[in-house]
Amino acid sequence: MKTDFSEFPFSSEQNVKGHLIDSGIMSSIMNLIIRCGGSYHIDEFNVGHTHDDMSSAKFKIYARTESQLKRIMDDLVDFGCQKSAEELDAVLLQSEMDMTVPDEFYSTTNHRTEIKLDGKWRVVQNQRMDAILVCSKSGDNWNIDCRKLRNIKKGDLVICGYQGVRIQPEFRERDREEFGFMNSDVSSERRVRIAVSKIAKTIHDRKARGEKVGVTAGPVVVHTGGGEYLARLIKDGYIDFLLSGNALAVHDIEQNLFQTSLGINITSGEPVHEGHKNHIRAINTIFRHGSIKAAVDAGILTGGIMYEAVKKNMPFALAGSIRDDGPLPEVFTDMSLAQEAYSNLLKNCGMMLMLSTMLHGIGVGNMLPGYVKTICVDINPAVVTKLADRGSHQTIGIVTDVGSFLASLYHELKK
Amino acid sequence: MKTDFSEFPFSSEQNVKGHLIDSGIMSSIMNLIIRCGGSYHIDEFNVGHTHDDMSSAKFKIYARTESQLKRIMDDLVDFGCQKSAEELDAVLLQSEMDMTVPDEFYSTTNHRTEIKLDGKWRVVQNQRMDAILVCSKSGDNWNIDCRKLRNIKKGDLVICGYQGVRIQPEFRERDREEFGFMNSDVSSERRVRIAVSKIAKTIHDRKARGEKVGVTAGPVVVHTGGGEYLARLIKDGYIDFLLSGNALAVHDIEQNLFQTSLGINITSGEPVHEGHKNHIRAINTIFRHGSIKAAVDAGILTGGIMYEAVKKNMPFALAGSIRDDGPLPEVFTDMSLAQEAYSNLLKNCGMMLMLSTMLHGIGVGNMLPGYVKTICVDINPAVVTKLADRGSHQTIGIVTDVGSFLASLYHELKK
Amino acid sequence: MKTDFSEFPFSSEQNVKGHLIDSGIMSSIMNLIIRCGGSYHIDEFNVGHTHDDMSSAKFKIYARTESQLKRIMDDLVDFGCQKSAEELDAVLLQSEMDMTVPDEFYSTTNHRTEIKLDGKWRVVQNQRMDAILVCSKSGDNWNIDCRKLRNIKKGDLVICGYQGVRIQPEFRERDREEFGFMNSDVSSERRVRIAVSKIAKTIHDRKARGEKVGVTAGPVVVHTGGGEYLARLIKDGYIDFLLSGNALAVHDIEQNLFQTSLGINITSGEPVHEGHKNHIRAINTIFRHGSIKAAVDAGILTGGIMYEAVKKNMPFALAGSIRDDGPLPEVFTDMSLAQEAYSNLLKNCGMMLMLSTMLHGIGVGNMLPGYVKTICVDINPAVVTKLADRGSHQTIGIVTDVGSFLASLYHELKK
Amino acid sequence: MKTDFSEFPFSSEQNVKGHLIDSGIMSSIMNLIIRCGGSYHIDEFNVGHTHDDMSSAKFKIYARTESQLKRIMDDLVDFGCQKSAEELDAVLLQSEMDMTVPDEFYSTTNHRTEIKLDGKWRVVQNQRMDAILVCSKSGDNWNIDCRKLRNIKKGDLVICGYQGVRIQPEFRERDREEFGFMNSDVSSERRVRIAVSKIAKTIHDRKARGEKVGVTAGPVVVHTGGGEYLARLIKDGYIDFLLSGNALAVHDIEQNLFQTSLGINITSGEPVHEGHKNHIRAINTIFRHGSIKAAVDAGILTGGIMYEAVKKNMPFALAGSIRDDGPLPEVFTDMSLAQEAYSNLLKNCGMMLMLSTMLHGIGVGNMLPGYVKTICVDINPAVVTKLADRGSHQTIGIVTDVGSFLASLYHELKK
Repeated sequence: MKTDFSEFPFSSEQNVKGHLIDSGIMSSIMNLIIRCGGSYHIDEFNVGHTHDDMSSAKFKIYARTESQLKRIMDDLVDFGCQKSAEELDAVLLQSEMDMTVPDEFYSTTNHRTEIKLDGKWRVVQNQRMDAILVCSKSGDNWNIDCRKLRNIKKGDLVICGYQGVRIQPEFRERDREEFGFMNSDVSSERRVRIAVSKIAKTIHDRKARGEKVGVTAGPVVVHTGGGEYLARLIKDGYIDFLLSGNALAVHDIEQNLFQTSLGINITSGEPVHEGHKNHIRAINTIFRHGSIKAAVDAGILTGGIMYEAVKKNMPFALAGSIRDDGPLPEVFTDMSLAQEAYSNLLKNCGMMLMLSTMLHGIGVGNMLPGYVKTICVDINPAVVTKLADRGSHQTIGIVTDVGSFLASLYHELKK
Repeated sequence: MKTDFSEFPFSSEQNVKGHLIDSGIMSSIMNLIIRCGGSYHIDEFNVGHTHDDMSSAKFKIYARTESQLKRIMDDLVDFGCQKSAEELDAVLLQSEMDMTVPDEFYSTTNHRTEIKLDGKWRVVQNQRMDAILVCSKSGDNWNIDCRKLRNIKKGDLVICGYQGVRIQPEFRERDREEFGFMNSDVSSERRVRIAVSKIAKTIHDRKARGEKVGVTAGPVVVHTGGGEYLARLIKDGYIDFLLSGNALAVHDIEQNLFQTSLGINITSGEPVHEGHKNHIRAINTIFRHGSIKAAVDAGILTGGIMYEAVKKNMPFALAGSIRDDGPLPEVFTDMSLAQEAYSNLLKNCGMMLMLSTMLHGIGVGNMLPGYVKTICVDINPAVVTKLADRGSHQTIGIVTDVGSFLASLYHELKK
Repeated sequence: MKTDFSEFPFSSEQNVKGHLIDSGIMSSIMNLIIRCGGSYHIDEFNVGHTHDDMSSAKFKIYARTESQLKRIMDDLVDFGCQKSAEELDAVLLQSEMDMTVPDEFYSTTNHRTEIKLDGKWRVVQNQRMDAILVCSKSGDNWNIDCRKLRNIKKGDLVICGYQGVRIQPEFRERDREEFGFMNSDVSSERRVRIAVSKIAKTIHDRKARGEKVGVTAGPVVVHTGGGEYLARLIKDGYIDFLLSGNALAVHDIEQNLFQTSLGINITSGEPVHEGHKNHIRAINTIFRHGSIKAAVDAGILTGGIMYEAVKKNMPFALAGSIRDDGPLPEVFTDMSLAQEAYSNLLKNCGMMLMLSTMLHGIGVGNMLPGYVKTICVDINPAVVTKLADRGSHQTIGIVTDVGSFLASLYHELKK
Repeated sequence: MKTDFSEFPFSSEQNVKGHLIDSGIMSSIMNLIIRCGGSYHIDEFNVGHTHDDMSSAKFKIYARTESQLKRIMDDLVDFGCQKSAEELDAVLLQSEMDMTVPDEFYSTTNHRTEIKLDGKWRVVQNQRMDAILVCSKSGDNWNIDCRKLRNIKKGDLVICGYQGVRIQPEFRERDREEFGFMNSDVSSERRVRIAVSKIAKTIHDRKARGEKVGVTAGPVVVHTGGGEYLARLIKDGYIDFLLSGNALAVHDIEQNLFQTSLGINITSGEPVHEGHKNHIRAINTIFRHGSIKAAVDAGILTGGIMYEAVKKNMPFALAGSIRDDGPLPEVFTDMSLAQEAYSNLLKNCGMMLMLSTMLHGIGVGNMLPGYVKTICVDINPAVVTKLADRGSHQTIGIVTDVGSFLASLYHELKK
């Protein structure tokens, strides 16, 4: 059945450029138009002749109503589409009240974004998802910043609508070559071995570029025997910052003070006498010294993740949670402060390892630009899927025991 | 870094046509070439201007060695690529021994396949994966048949290599519109409700086209209370054939004779006295009458899946397995006969429901052409993924309790 | 091989009383002694002759060293064992510094606990696990309170060691009768149906006893369509308090303001235009009014869980987390305050429903005495196991879709 | 509320002996009586004073009706209970027709069972579950054999009812000491390491006793790189027989002939050219030689599981299934023959390793007496639970990658 374009009286011409086929962008565009009830006509498609070339397309969107047309146009912005007509400046409206924005506010994605102001495209700072774009001008210069809703002040100039917004979605293909085997049907263990060597390579590469490599980790890292290797990675300078919670630190400290993990001897696997007390004992010890750092300085805590972090002066941020015992003095009990601390450490991050923590993994994912290479490791496939699906082609999910993963990664990096 | 084509002295010009962007075909082609170490140059790309139009492309593959070139060309056949040069006839070699073929044999996919013989393209019969193509000529007519290796006879003419082989991969897009929501992030239960209505629509549609709707089901269908609804679907003529094993039939009969499932009362959930004996008792009852059909005819078995199948004269094939008790008289204990029986019933099947059975699901998947719409239902996401990944875009996986699924499907169909 | 008691020169006579066989207590005692390297001799075992009677036992522990003996004796306290010799008063030591306790501190379980002071057994208040027991005397009366380490003040009198500590483990059997079928091999869906009717009965029963029924719930409750039913349960007075996080409230409000859940239309399952903005929009709306309550009062928020809670004046506590957007004004961003708020609402709780939230479920589990009937519902068996294993025989785990569960529970309660 | 025994006019006195507390037998007895609606009075309970002693109990069952009493008595037979009154001889009835038994037939458990005939207790041969007990007399001697229903012949003397049946349930405790740590909360990887050393010890122990150690394995063993280690275990004589299916053998042979597994290179993880053909090619190769053994003898197949089995003359049985390609000549395509072959190899088996195969694992589990130590290894916790729950305290479940497990086990055994 042929499309009858006379049913679609409203139309707009659009341009798009990039690795349109490889990255699935062109196909996403087409699907979105059809699902929204519209239709399209591709007027030009200049395919990138070789692997190195970008493609570009010029196409018309057709819609039955003006609002349908607007809806499709707005949604296509996320795929990097631009009206063929000269794009107008973005629309700026003032916030009328602290912590609120006008209803039409533009909500960010985690893709690299540019805004047209005074006729020029300007790159957004601190790109993250679900933020508000706040603009301020000094001289001829516009600063455009991603800001959380709660940090909006009355009078802030906020981008509204999709006009003058340009997005650059990531391109998937080069990555597919490196980590493409992850999707094939080899057994997990084999795949993991191969993945580890690519990850080690990427760590070297990011550090060579001057970008930071961060870790967010859950307490399972300690239970599975990965704590020792994470500590060594920190000691040897592979990790630039750590984002975690109270539990990781408590379990790490329990293990290093008492050789138990949740009261179980870490070598024999047997419960030890009064072992269930050991995590409270660990907290008691730190409370007595006033802080983790003080316990390290006093020579009480002599090994493990937190010890190496203190010794190396590697920055970390520990966020509290409703489950916490203690919490340890270094923990941010206030979530707004914890988010700020996380967010500060994530600046200039080029690679993020998310190790067995859905809670902190999602937290970090919300703050990261989509173009940061992210590795999610968990024994539970559902967690990996959930983290890896959060909108970035740069995320690689690995289903395995995080303890073995860290051991392998350490040995691979030391090769 | 620009590709230096002088490093790739070997090349071949190829054509491809279809929904190249939507279905991800063009992107797969590019990736395969790069992963195999080759390069490409797209000479022409005629994009389908509208949703209804197909695209076509002409491109050159570049390779470093002749064998690399051949390898890439061979592998691209699976994506529907064809050499621009006039394709030669397929190569036929004789089997030298029963149950064996020459080493160069062509192994089938589950996509629609054509073979060039005597200068004309001819469609393959009984398309399935991992089969051998056996050709025979009567008059001017070639018959080309998918055959299992064990059925090859000495002297059979067998297609070897990729020359003269043309494949038509399925196109994903129209389906994406119908079942596209399955990939979005709505909760399972909601998604299931919506999926059920599309499945009901597809069942009506396939039956209207004169195609058969088949079911393969595991015993969990009975344990979850789905037996009653599968029985009704059979009674009301929605299902044309059933492929299963001994366990489904035994549990169905146990439930209808004794109101228990694995010895547990199906209403109260409580174990009943001597309940663990009931499945052997059910077998004993059928053995006494000589067959399921005889027990139905004798008025002993008066309800359930097998009862309705017998009453309706709906064909079924039950395959034995190493786990079986009994097995029931109708069960094929010999797997070669069971596979034949399955395969016969699958002819002209337009839609297949795979209900909580990895074993039979994989068995059926091996025999089905890729263009048959297949629905896999299982509570375990891993099973759904495994079944849905077996090479067909037509497969929709649904993670839910199969008992509730069948109840919903029945009610939706009766609307 | 006969035990040679001469190898075990150290011994102690112990008593224990309760449903020793049914509840597996006697068997746990024996196993613990053997695993710790000791031996035992049961001198008397007075079995409860009928289902209603308790059993009692007198037995000797044998050990190779004095410290082994002490270790076994200490560990047996958790199973309710008591030395036959007159028990001495518990040992009280002073805290020497805020937030710290002496190393020998006694760490609580979640079982009902008594402490001997001035020759009399006295019941511990606010029983929870991993707490410190702080004692204070007024007149002849001792108050013994479970306190978190961080709330210890310099000078507090703290119970140390196991002397004068008596524990009353829960008895499993009566419960096994009611929910015993949960362990049998019936299908999940069937089991759920039966479980729901027992849970409804237990809710009626607890409320009749004047105990509170609480809910802790994750945002999945909203995604799966359970929000509507949880709202009705609140409206109809079945629920006395709600413990949750920012996400549940945001998704509930998004759904009621915009009919979407994570941007997906809750009826059609289709993504809606700008849907991904809706959760920020929901927060923006609440920020504009200043609080959830203010938005309800203003007639802006007109349905859902939070609406009914406000209307009904049902208390709730929302704890922040590192993942939060917003957070909403009612959310405790400081975890210490959040824990306090949770803990206050949990007083006199007789039944707790944990609905698809590992984070808040563990948080609540830490605070609850073991004798509170707890129901954990999650689609992921691992979450249910983890929550149900936290040391209480009173916990029942149910693996199912939480949306359907709430719908069934509501209908069962309204019968 | 006190039990009013006047409501229970029917009663029977019972005896039971064994590790009644440790193994949970006494507690199971009490629960069963209460759940069936009866009541009990324990008249005597002679507790085993030390870990080495057995306990014994004399108790009365009370019931409201005669049939309820009979039901309870029958069901208690499974826990080793015996009437105090002199037990009468078992009841023998004749089968009236091949493959059928009288309705009252006794259906076996997998526990050691004795039958009273001519006033003497006699041990059942070939103990397995869900079988019929067929008795035959020669001279004064009765032979009592577990037989599958399909092998019953007209005229066979079959045990009916529970009279004269005595069962000896396994005792759990000694095992709990060895593998007890498996239930504690240590991380999987740690637990696995400890479990492997216990399994190695048990293998040495069983072989020292002259019992056989068997393996049943799925194809995942090969995909995960475990094939190499299973081959070595066979070569070094640790394994006495192998029960598997066609797929294991095909994948093992594919890997050894072509270095691929499902077409993926086993070292690089990359798909190889025409790799998807390799499993059909492997079958083609074996077909050409006529059998696996012939291919080994011809020097074509030079390594792997099947190669070592042939070289070592280690017996194996391969059962067909509906999924099979080929199948290989050594495969039993008829399931009745396959079950017989399995059953023959399982004679005198003292230990069974079930490696990543639910299908064959359940098949083997059906045939094994409950007192054979069984180890189930799978990456999927649900499979391990399902296999481990099949009625034997002797089964240990291990959730891990089977490839790493086999490597560890091999290295542990070679220590």
